[in-house]
Amino acid sequence: MVDAFGTMLLEALEGRGTGHEIVERDDGFIDAATFDYFAPVRRWPADERRALRYVRGRVLDVGCGAGRVALELQARGHEVLAIDPSPGAVEVARRRGVRDVRRMRLGDVDESLGHFGTVLMYGNNFGLLGGRLKAGRLLRRLRGLADRIVASSNDPSVTDDPAHLAYQERNCSRGRMPGQLRLRIRWRDLADPWFDYLIVSPAEIEELVLGTGWRVRRLVRGDSSGYVAVLDVESGEV
Amino acid sequence: MVDAFGTMLLEALEGRGTGHEIVERDDGFIDAATFDYFAPVRRWPADERRALRYVRGRVLDVGCGAGRVALELQARGHEVLAIDPSPGAVEVARRRGVRDVRRMRLGDVDESLGHFGTVLMYGNNFGLLGGRLKAGRLLRRLRGLADRIVASSNDPSVTDDPAHLAYQERNCSRGRMPGQLRLRIRWRDLADPWFDYLIVSPAEIEELVLGTGWRVRRLVRGDSSGYVAVLDVESGEV
Repeated sequence: MVDAFGTMLLEALEGRGTGHEIVERDDGFIDAATFDYFAPVRRWPADERRALRYVRGRVLDVGCGAGRVALELQARGHEVLAIDPSPGAVEVARRRGVRDVRRMRLGDVDESLGHFGTVLMYGNNFGLLGGRLKAGRLLRRLRGLADRIVASSNDPSVTDDPAHLAYQERNCSRGRMPGQLRLRIRWRDLADPWFDYLIVSPAEIEELVLGTGWRVRRLVRGDSSGYVAVLDVESGEV
Repeated sequence: MVDAFGTMLLEALEGRGTGHEIVERDDGFIDAATFDYFAPVRRWPADERRALRYVRGRVLDVGCGAGRVALELQARGHEVLAIDPSPGAVEVARRRGVRDVRRMRLGDVDESLGHFGTVLMYGNNFGLLGGRLKAGRLLRRLRGLADRIVASSNDPSVTDDPAHLAYQERNCSRGRMPGQLRLRIRWRDLADPWFDYLIVSPAEIEELVLGTGWRVRRLVRGDSSGYVAVLDVESGEV
C-alpha cells in the first residue's frame, strides 16, 4: 500500500525529510505546506489552542497524524482513542507515546468503539467529512456515538485568489460544495490516492448539520481564515 | 506561454509566494526546494562564492533567474549579459537592476552577442547542457565565443538514496547519462514544460569536454555534493 503521508511523517520523526508537505489538487494546483504535525500545543493555530476548553470526556482523535493532539489531550488527563488510515501515521503516533492508536477511517467508526465525550478533528480535519452526502451520513452516525464534535476548518470564502475562486466555481457547476477539494499527498516518489477534503464556511456548517441531530454551539475564530466549530447533540445539555 | 518559474520569481519579488520551488521528475519524484534565487553573495553556496575568483572579463550569465549572480558581478565591475528563457525571470532581473538581460536560451547564443571572457552557469546550470549530445554541441559552439566557462553542478554519484539510484540506473539502461534528469517546475496551477537537466560528476565533465576544445582547469568543491568546474579553452593561456 502506498503511504506517502505516513512515510513523510516517519522520515520526519527520524530526522530526515524536508518538512514540506506537497499537496496536489485535481486542477493541477500544487503547494508545499509547512504545517507542523509534531508541534507542541504552544505552536498550534490560535483557534485550536483556544477551543481545547471545549474538549471533554473520552476523546476520539480523527486523523491523528503524528499524534500532536492525542499527546496533548492524554497529558491533560483525557482518555484518547486516536485513529488514522495511514500505517505510517499510526506507527509515528504510537512511537511518540499515543497510548491507543488504531489504523482506521472515520467511516469505520461504530459503536464497538464505545461512547465518546468528544470527537476531535483538528488540522482542518472537518474536511474528512468529504462532501455534502458523506458529511450527512457521517454526522448522523456520530450522533449516536458522541456528545460533541470539535473540528477545525478553513473558510473557503475568505480568498481573492483567482485560482481558488475558479476551482470553487467549477465545483459549484458540478454540484459539489465550493470548498470540496479533491487532493492527494505526494512525498518524494510516492503519491497517495486522491481523496475529497471539504473546507467550509461557518454558514455551510449550519446547513450541513441540519437534520443530523447536531447543532453549532460555538465558533472559535483563528488568526486568518481558520476556525474551530463546536457541535453539540441537538437535544443535549452539556 | 506558461511560465511557472518566472511567475514564482515575480510573486516572490512582490512579497507573495511561499518560497518553495516545486520540482517534479518524470518518475514522479517531487520535491519542494528552498533555493534562494534572491540571495546576496554572502548566502550563496560556498563553492559558488569561492569560484568567483575565476570569473574574468565580460560575462554571459546563463539562466540568470532573479539576477543574483549578474547583480553581484555588475557590482564587481564586470560587463554582464544575463539571459533566461523565462519572461518572468527576465522581468524580475531587470526590475532588480540587471542592466542587460534578454529572453534567450543557451542554444540561441551566437557570435552576434560578441565575445565573452566568462560564460557563467551557477545554480547548477551546467545542467542546461542537457545531455551528452547537446552538451557536446553547445560546448563546441561556446568554444568560439568565450575564453572560460565557470559552471556549478551537483555530483549525482554522491547519493545513497534508493529513489535516486533507481532513476540513475533507469537512465543508464536507456542510454542516458546517470544524472540526466527530466524535470519540470510547478508553481501553483502552472506547470512548465519538461526539460532535461544534467547533473554530472567531475569525471563525467572530463569526458564531456573531450573533443570540444575545452579542458577542465579547476574544480572548486562545495560543502556537500555541489562543486564548480572551471573550463578553459584547450589551447588558451588565461
